[in-house]
Amino acid sequence: MPQRFDLLVVGGGVIGLSVAWRAARGGLRVAVMDPAPASGASHAAAGMLAPVSEVTYTEEPLLRLGLASLDRWPSFAAELAADAGREAGDLDYRDGGTLDVAFGADDMAALEEIAAFATGLGLPARRLTGRECRRLEPMLAPSVRGGMLAERDAWVDPRKVTAALLTALERRGVTLLRTRAAALETSAGRVTGVRPATGGTVGADRVVLAAGAWSGGPGGAGAPAAIEGLPPGILPPVRPVKGQIMRLRSPEPILGRCVRGTVHGSHVYLVPRADGELVVGATQEEMGFDTRVTAGGLWELLRDARELLPGVTELELSDAVAGLRPGTPDNLPVIGPAGPPGLWLATGHHRNGVLLAPLTADLCAGDGDPGLLKICSPLRFQEHR
Amino acid sequence: MPQRFDLLVVGGGVIGLSVAWRAARGGLRVAVMDPAPASGASHAAAGMLAPVSEVTYTEEPLLRLGLASLDRWPSFAAELAADAGREAGDLDYRDGGTLDVAFGADDMAALEEIAAFATGLGLPARRLTGRECRRLEPMLAPSVRGGMLAERDAWVDPRKVTAALLTALERRGVTLLRTRAAALETSAGRVTGVRPATGGTVGADRVVLAAGAWSGGPGGAGAPAAIEGLPPGILPPVRPVKGQIMRLRSPEPILGRCVRGTVHGSHVYLVPRADGELVVGATQEEMGFDTRVTAGGLWELLRDARELLPGVTELELSDAVAGLRPGTPDNLPVIGPAGPPGLWLATGHHRNGVLLAPLTADLCAGDGDPGLLKICSPLRFQEHR
Repeated sequence: MPQRFDLLVVGGGVIGLSVAWRAARGGLRVAVMDPAPASGASHAAAGMLAPVSEVTYTEEPLLRLGLASLDRWPSFAAELAADAGREAGDLDYRDGGTLDVAFGADDMAALEEIAAFATGLGLPARRLTGRECRRLEPMLAPSVRGGMLAERDAWVDPRKVTAALLTALERRGVTLLRTRAAALETSAGRVTGVRPATGGTVGADRVVLAAGAWSGGPGGAGAPAAIEGLPPGILPPVRPVKGQIMRLRSPEPILGRCVRGTVHGSHVYLVPRADGELVVGATQEEMGFDTRVTAGGLWELLRDARELLPGVTELELSDAVAGLRPGTPDNLPVIGPAGPPGLWLATGHHRNGVLLAPLTADLCAGDGDPGLLKICSPLRFQEHR
Repeated sequence: MPQRFDLLVVGGGVIGLSVAWRAARGGLRVAVMDPAPASGASHAAAGMLAPVSEVTYTEEPLLRLGLASLDRWPSFAAELAADAGREAGDLDYRDGGTLDVAFGADDMAALEEIAAFATGLGLPARRLTGRECRRLEPMLAPSVRGGMLAERDAWVDPRKVTAALLTALERRGVTLLRTRAAALETSAGRVTGVRPATGGTVGADRVVLAAGAWSGGPGGAGAPAAIEGLPPGILPPVRPVKGQIMRLRSPEPILGRCVRGTVHGSHVYLVPRADGELVVGATQEEMGFDTRVTAGGLWELLRDARELLPGVTELELSDAVAGLRPGTPDNLPVIGPAGPPGLWLATGHHRNGVLLAPLTADLCAGDGDPGLLKICSPLRFQEHR
């Protein structure tokens, strides 16, 4: 094993693995450092690829990023499956759209606004009556009053994606270092490698920090030690946003597409898998580095899912986990050169890590619209300091 | 290993293990047959030893059985801990009483009746105002209007009890046969042993059938094959009553004693462990041999627990399982000679298996009030046929 690489990626979630895979396909000698790859937010994630219906809660720059990455998903999924030696359908990538439903007059008005906004941007967003919603999804609650179908939205199984990425990396000879990155090594202001917690040095021409919620500077109580070795102000202001999510098991799929709605003021979404699994997500909690599944979190998910789809009551609970999304002050990811030569960032993807993985990998490989890279620049936070 | 025993117990739940332990202490050569001991209803059970507060939902004969067994619990726990080489407190046996709380006027009226009934029988049952309830248990919901403290009630950790029983059995040289009992062997109308699913014969002077919900005659769809080899009408009319139950984890105990109440018409109880675990149970469902933990079952438990004790919201979910209680038509257990010489039954304990284990073991050892044994006689069902 060479202890010097062209590229060393710190963090083995969907972002880090995608960046490493893209680079390895480009012919670089690549390593990934993570004590437990594919076990954090990527393991919890539902895998909605839904830039349009996410418009509700965010701004236009994120929509641009999301659409650019959504366009990349079909070929990303196909090439990844092939590279991992799997069938084309093995990642459960599907593009049946997202159905956003409304219960009350306020919800309906909000959906009208989103639909108008999306249509104005040339995006397909079809408004539906309650009856039309139930014709699409017969298991929906009778109290659903109307909805909007974002027809371009898609979804994928993130656990299958990261498993395929790990296989593809192995087949391409990428080195997986199962240890924690303790510090960045620098020489004359340039980042030259990483010091693992287990000691020694792993040298690299470029280091990409893709450690999700663990990429940020020193945090508050309960926060893990930040990666050392950098001057203050370089690490991005990333914070953990806890999400609890559960998986139910059905003998056969009870939805044909993703469904989301607002219940008692909280957003819930339901993502169906081809094998009958139904993902119900997710809470959004500012709890620091806390990954406990709580009675209150589960109760909220169960309450909201029942409201949307009463039939869930009969389904078996197969999994309940919590993950930490890497949130940023402006809800946009942090991708690009971090300042010191040799260091890039690829983090801060918050709710959109799975969606933005193909675009992030391309941007880190120098392949992508410079305007998009500018939106994500780490320097936007450094300038404010 | 001798293939002939004085006593062969079919079923390694808390009942079967207790019967075997009592017999082994009496000097008998004993074997227990179970493919997965201590994994069924005993693993799910909360461990309330609450004959008085159970009076609500049942009849006086069961109360007599419960009180007789409750009296045996302190010495049973002490002797079991000693026999298993453990500290006296290791089974988490505690006797702080059950607090039964009421939210509305109807609940209060029902509690008044139970309290009057219990007091009439000379049992301690103290009525409390809402304020007195919260003085005992400060975490209780403000909406609790009053309650009743059944001061004699106790509780224990069933998982620690079965683990101690398995250790004690091993130390006493009891043979544990990890296989399913396929059939009873008979000779001239007398039961002479058991044929395991793995073949062969295990001979015994007496067989005790203590297989819980699996002790009954041939059931409906989805039911496992009944134990073979007996004339029709001998196996008791035991049916599975599904209970889903969850365990929450707290840094320290948030209750000092068991609390129960009726929320939205369903009964919920909360059992605290010394280490901070809080058991929340349990659903009662007639679903056949179905042990799935469902979204609806969990939702009901979480909803009811929140109503009683709003602070549960912050607690971590550590376990959720379903067990099958062995229910009988009259809610009384089935203990005693089954008809054919050499065969005894010890099953049908429904919600009271843990409570009734010491008494059941004594009755099977010929030690106990003949009047109690008569209440439990298997022949009461055979006579009706």
